Amino acid sequence: MTDAVTACILIIGNEILSGRTQDVNVSHLAKTLGGWGIQVKHCRVIPDVEDIIIDTVNEVRPAYDYIFTTGGIGPTHDDITAECIAKAFGVELIEDPDIAARISSRPAPDDVMASRLRMARVPQGAALIDNPTGGPQGFAMDNVYVMAGIPMIMQAMLSSLDGQLRSGPVVHSHSVRAYTGESQIADALSALQDEFAAVDIGSYPFFRDERYGTILVIRGTDTAQLAEVAGRIMAAVEALGETPEDMGLTE
Amino acid sequence: MTDAVTACILIIGNEILSGRTQDVNVSHLAKTLGGWGIQVKHCRVIPDVEDIIIDTVNEVRPAYDYIFTTGGIGPTHDDITAECIAKAFGVELIEDPDIAARISSRPAPDDVMASRLRMARVPQGAALIDNPTGGPQGFAMDNVYVMAGIPMIMQAMLSSLDGQLRSGPVVHSHSVRAYTGESQIADALSALQDEFAAVDIGSYPFFRDERYGTILVIRGTDTAQLAEVAGRIMAAVEALGETPEDMGLTE
Repeated sequence: MTDAVTACILIIGNEILSGRTQDVNVSHLAKTLGGWGIQVKHCRVIPDVEDIIIDTVNEVRPAYDYIFTTGGIGPTHDDITAECIAKAFGVELIEDPDIAARISSRPAPDDVMASRLRMARVPQGAALIDNPTGGPQGFAMDNVYVMAGIPMIMQAMLSSLDGQLRSGPVVHSHSVRAYTGESQIADALSALQDEFAAVDIGSYPFFRDERYGTILVIRGTDTAQLAEVAGRIMAAVEALGETPEDMGLTE
Repeated sequence: MTDAVTACILIIGNEILSGRTQDVNVSHLAKTLGGWGIQVKHCRVIPDVEDIIIDTVNEVRPAYDYIFTTGGIGPTHDDITAECIAKAFGVELIEDPDIAARISSRPAPDDVMASRLRMARVPQGAALIDNPTGGPQGFAMDNVYVMAGIPMIMQAMLSSLDGQLRSGPVVHSHSVRAYTGESQIADALSALQDEFAAVDIGSYPFFRDERYGTILVIRGTDTAQLAEVAGRIMAAVEALGETPEDMGLTE
């Protein structure tokens, strides 16, 4: 079995920390990368502050296989991610000719073009991340992948990386829905978790149609083993007189 | 002027890192705390792993006035937040009589009750956070506030803290909507940011009704100054021949 490949997400932006904007990039990144065999292990939301961005990037980049950042690569004064990444790596910030050509193909007055060309600045040595929306590209510096914060653009950039990244075993989820309280099956779950150390069993209560219930999520790389554990959980729920539902492999 | 009061949020849960669950607690916490004069400066999403929870809590708790955690205080084996907080502070994990009494008031078979009573365990010396839904309470250990992960319950617990926490100046937002590209007003924004160092000017592009536009958000504690900067931004947009909309004070 190959080793796990891990990732850390850095969400850069005051608008997330103020609560003005609801982040949706973490869940999209986690699901997409997970499907590619890259496990998101950590995530941080940090403000548009130079020292914090630099220190955070340098703290996490040796600790995970991949770092994915979103936000701060637009044309305005508060878009400082590219220069922070350059400083984190101790390299110059240069104008990338490919990004500049893409930006310049849409005419604009000189001062507007100057602002737009801010988006062409990348750390020396960076590789480009394509942007299928046609806008300026993102970039990768070593294992740090720098993408837009706008979800539609981030998702487009990420899609262009499909097949380009190193991957490990895919962690699958197998879920069972039970209209039973968490406490009623807690002992059975704990025993099963002890017996099957290679899987992670999570328990998520819900309330729907005036009934309490629990979704049991079994995560691991061996789908046959996930099905086995799901069967054991089903049996434990049935022993309580309830009828569980096997949801099979889920996100 | 009083000093800023700061907070860090720790979202504890594999289900957020896998992308299975979309977090909504960060934005609710950020908006609510912001309204109380507590500024969220940092946020992390971490897995249900003992060492990581302990190390993270001990890393962040000296660095912010308040730490708020969500998740991992239910009745099942994967709910390990309370014992991790006890270990982080080097104290015993005890059964709190008030929480135990609340749990015990709803009869259950012995094994189910034993699992439910896991939710009564708190670090020695913790204070309780009320849970207006009637379920088990959360707790605070020094400056670390430990709450449920289920948004409805977390929100109820948080509401019980209204007026209980130390607060600083409230950071307000004043927004201007302009149907103009970010690049067109980037120079004006940059000059205004230089002129008004006490405010933060953010620029957030959007696409609606087939038109591109930008929301300019000015954040700071002095609402008169925010209105002044908003007026200057309006003038800059009007100079481009566009008609901006003053959205006034916003979230």
